[in-house]
Amino acid sequence: MQSIQQSFKVDFSYKVFFTRYLFSPDNHVFRDYLLSQASGALIKKLLFVVDDGVAASHPQLISQISAYLQHITSFDLAGDVILVPGGEACKNDQALFYSLVDKIDEQRIDRHSFLVAIGGGAVLDLAGMVAAVSHRGVRHIRIPTTVLSQNDSGVGVKNGINYKGKKNFLGTFAPPAAVFNDIHFLTTLQPEDWRAGISEAVKVALIRDAAFFEWLEEHADVLVNGDLPLMQELVYRCAALHVAHIGGGGDPFESGSSRPLDFGHWSAHKLEQLTGFVLRHGEAVSVGIALDSVYTSLLGWIDETVAWRIVRLLHRFRLPVYHPLLEEQQGTPSPVLKGLQEFREHLGGRLTICLLKKIGQGAEVHEIDETLLNKAVELLKENYATK
Amino acid sequence: MQSIQQSFKVDFSYKVFFTRYLFSPDNHVFRDYLLSQASGALIKKLLFVVDDGVAASHPQLISQISAYLQHITSFDLAGDVILVPGGEACKNDQALFYSLVDKIDEQRIDRHSFLVAIGGGAVLDLAGMVAAVSHRGVRHIRIPTTVLSQNDSGVGVKNGINYKGKKNFLGTFAPPAAVFNDIHFLTTLQPEDWRAGISEAVKVALIRDAAFFEWLEEHADVLVNGDLPLMQELVYRCAALHVAHIGGGGDPFESGSSRPLDFGHWSAHKLEQLTGFVLRHGEAVSVGIALDSVYTSLLGWIDETVAWRIVRLLHRFRLPVYHPLLEEQQGTPSPVLKGLQEFREHLGGRLTICLLKKIGQGAEVHEIDETLLNKAVELLKENYATK
Repeated sequence: MQSIQQSFKVDFSYKVFFTRYLFSPDNHVFRDYLLSQASGALIKKLLFVVDDGVAASHPQLISQISAYLQHITSFDLAGDVILVPGGEACKNDQALFYSLVDKIDEQRIDRHSFLVAIGGGAVLDLAGMVAAVSHRGVRHIRIPTTVLSQNDSGVGVKNGINYKGKKNFLGTFAPPAAVFNDIHFLTTLQPEDWRAGISEAVKVALIRDAAFFEWLEEHADVLVNGDLPLMQELVYRCAALHVAHIGGGGDPFESGSSRPLDFGHWSAHKLEQLTGFVLRHGEAVSVGIALDSVYTSLLGWIDETVAWRIVRLLHRFRLPVYHPLLEEQQGTPSPVLKGLQEFREHLGGRLTICLLKKIGQGAEVHEIDETLLNKAVELLKENYATK
Repeated sequence: MQSIQQSFKVDFSYKVFFTRYLFSPDNHVFRDYLLSQASGALIKKLLFVVDDGVAASHPQLISQISAYLQHITSFDLAGDVILVPGGEACKNDQALFYSLVDKIDEQRIDRHSFLVAIGGGAVLDLAGMVAAVSHRGVRHIRIPTTVLSQNDSGVGVKNGINYKGKKNFLGTFAPPAAVFNDIHFLTTLQPEDWRAGISEAVKVALIRDAAFFEWLEEHADVLVNGDLPLMQELVYRCAALHVAHIGGGGDPFESGSSRPLDFGHWSAHKLEQLTGFVLRHGEAVSVGIALDSVYTSLLGWIDETVAWRIVRLLHRFRLPVYHPLLEEQQGTPSPVLKGLQEFREHLGGRLTICLLKKIGQGAEVHEIDETLLNKAVELLKENYATK
């Protein structure tokens, strides 16, 4: 019996730029990037997709973009900037997905042109999926506008849309061509969105960087009150840890079952779904971190005082650390527990949950003890349900 | 201004197996592969999608599959085998695409389970796309059943479906987990399908392997009459060249504009579309090879006698080398010429067309001289329109 072995490596690389006032005429960051991508006399197109909430908070944005591009001869704005509704709802809207695919077609966006998405994580996920599957992959530039997308999802390699209510059921791994984090967008966020993004910083600090965790503790009160330079540092440190984990973790496209960056996420995904996405992703992750931290201490892996130190930090960020759906409901198991099975199915293979070895270091388990988990829920309820 | 550079490599590897009677109880090829993919006690699922034409020609196939799998304890057949219509039409059917996504969901196929597709290139393209975007990539096994899919598309890294009549407008690059070429499937092909697949062998020989071209000339008459051992050798040599080109060409996911494997394809894609896919892909490619070979000789790159030697070989395989749509239509340019622009758009960037330096070596150009192209059409018409 004959066989042929195919083997090859594909190189992926992209830069995450940190700047302020990206489309101001004197800001060269975006222009320099585009010029680095020019190919002789060929005109490349840029199709912009913008979160309508962002456009509303920044009424000059669209005219700024068009003025900014006017002086870059090798790149053309493709048609009008497209506004799409922000938030998780946009990922449920199949018609919206196809209307963006239609724009790729109508505007003749080819594999050397760019879809540029400006918005929160949901808009970036949707636009990234459109770019990834059109012509087998149009180049995609991300301009995240929330804390959560600037420090976490927007600098990563995933995209996705929901299907029949299942979060990210359809999606791909498709690294962006570049990411531009403009801190100015954070100044118009709702306080809840400002805070919600911080939970991913707490998460990545817990699994990768004890010093960053201590820095978060030190600056929590100033951060939560809207200090922009400190938030800029938080976003940079968190994004850097996230990028390093993906690039250095050995499995950027997650072919295994391990997903340490998803600490606190198994219950968070389920809570988001059960609350119809009323609970923000970052808020749900905060509950998930609290739950898994207390659970970890009940397993005896970390000291009880360490677990409550984590929960207290989340609480100082005015993030929720408990939700009634965690509890047993009239004698039946907590509906969130079903999230364990769904998490396993989405990742595939063996159930693999990230817990903590200590602050700054994650560790994996392949089973969850329901009795201890319920105990963790009770303890969180006792201490934080009414706070 | 700060920035973070992300860089990583992703390894892709898969084997293409050549066998006969894949699901016969004493054939260990498929079983050995599955066992190499087992993970301890974890049961992995196999969801089969089968081309209904193949199932009709091989009425025992489905029961053979289920009997074969019964003895492999760590793998389970997920639900019933799903039959889908074969041929290009299945790639136009959005409802069919989503019905397969629904099966992934209903049968709880996760990223460590497998979608196994058995069929011609169109079914493999459709099923490959379903696998690639479900859960951001379910493992995908291909069992191609036509000459064309066994020696070309089925052993490559692309998938895709059509959108609003545009071929492969939606798709991804997603290498299969494994490919199984069972030569027995070729015994039930229509003669037209047997022959159509040969054009890709002629193509890859022309751009990569002069000795293979001579081998094709030597065996043309026996091959065209259905000799299975010779076809087995043709499929193996062609697949090996195709696999080597993808893995060794330096750009497996086609981030550049160059696509040497698409010799003869720019007009072929357009001819397929203009004939509503009545012309088979392999037949259209044959016309495209003939056109670009004669055009290459008019450019003076190869001798006229070489061009006609190529055309004659295609003709000996009873493949078309001319089509009326190549001609000017009532004074307006040939409708196939529009295919040049569409080909550029699909690849992106600069127009890049593969021609021939000599038999066995391709060469690229970035423009096509319409006068010479029309001349090539005329010459083909004069010599072959009535043959």
